[in-house]
Amino acid sequence: MRDAVRRATLAELAEHGFRGLTVENVAERSGVHKTTVYRRWGSVEGLISDALELAGAEPWPIPDTGTIEGDLRGVARLVQNGFADPELGPVSSAFVAAAMQNPDAARALHDFFESRHEQSSRVVRRAVERGELPDTVDVLEVIRVAVAPIYYRLFVAHEPVTRADADRAADAALAAARAGVLAARAEPHG
Amino acid sequence: MRDAVRRATLAELAEHGFRGLTVENVAERSGVHKTTVYRRWGSVEGLISDALELAGAEPWPIPDTGTIEGDLRGVARLVQNGFADPELGPVSSAFVAAAMQNPDAARALHDFFESRHEQSSRVVRRAVERGELPDTVDVLEVIRVAVAPIYYRLFVAHEPVTRADADRAADAALAAARAGVLAARAEPHG
Repeated sequence: MRDAVRRATLAELAEHGFRGLTVENVAERSGVHKTTVYRRWGSVEGLISDALELAGAEPWPIPDTGTIEGDLRGVARLVQNGFADPELGPVSSAFVAAAMQNPDAARALHDFFESRHEQSSRVVRRAVERGELPDTVDVLEVIRVAVAPIYYRLFVAHEPVTRADADRAADAALAAARAGVLAARAEPHG
Repeated sequence: MRDAVRRATLAELAEHGFRGLTVENVAERSGVHKTTVYRRWGSVEGLISDALELAGAEPWPIPDTGTIEGDLRGVARLVQNGFADPELGPVSSAFVAAAMQNPDAARALHDFFESRHEQSSRVVRRAVERGELPDTVDVLEVIRVAVAPIYYRLFVAHEPVTRADADRAADAALAAARAGVLAARAEPHG
């Protein structure tokens, strides 16, 4: 049942976005009784949080090209392609919009990205093992810096994002990591 | 009158966010008749677009520390401080949220950031004049990369942003610019 409701949530988000998402429509599409959906998920925000939780647990096709240049570009292109995808793009955008308007959705999206950062940072860990990057590097920050300009263009400045933009964002993160400015910081005492 | 309505829009956004913004409340707070507000601004989205247009025209206190390191960190700190500000922060966040839900607001925010990028890029142009950066650098992209991780933490990953995070984002952009990966690209022919 959880999977049916989740798939219905994603389909409704793809069609109508966050603003058009209703418990009634998800119930109807999933074939689960409305009363049950209300009891178990509570609200639209509960549906979104649950869908995000399942999405975060899914493995991501992390690239393994043999070099950190190729791998980081691969991660950035996954993000860029995801938003350009006619089915996946609107759903992902709806998640970001929902999190801006609701604290529960924001927490769920936070956890989702924590999982994504952790998975993606494998490409940076491998680079450290191969000696391409110093072992002082903050592996999660390299990922953040590599994808941030893509999200910034999409959701803040509302500018188009090309594959070249994705590559450039990845290259910038790598240059910063090599220059040592993305080193892990000592935790403050106290 | 335009200024009164605009100030009322900003005050309402600060108090209630985008979801709580209504034409009625803006009319009441501004002392302008509701019918007039509807006729001239049309809707909540029209009010937001107008407030953004005026905000974009305002000069930004671009830093001038004498070095590109200090100036870029200054730009990143302006962004970080702005969102941490108890009055300005909620308004800025409301603009970002509104743009995610409405095409008119998205266009207005796009224009606002175009203006901000242009103003901020002065620090990069000065660095080129001083010989700190090559004249092939894409001055607008340096600004995007310097601020993107701040917005990414705030509005996508929903992570806290410290001044050290802002500095690190600025340092990363500078390292990338120095490494030559933020060079302006030749426009494709055709």
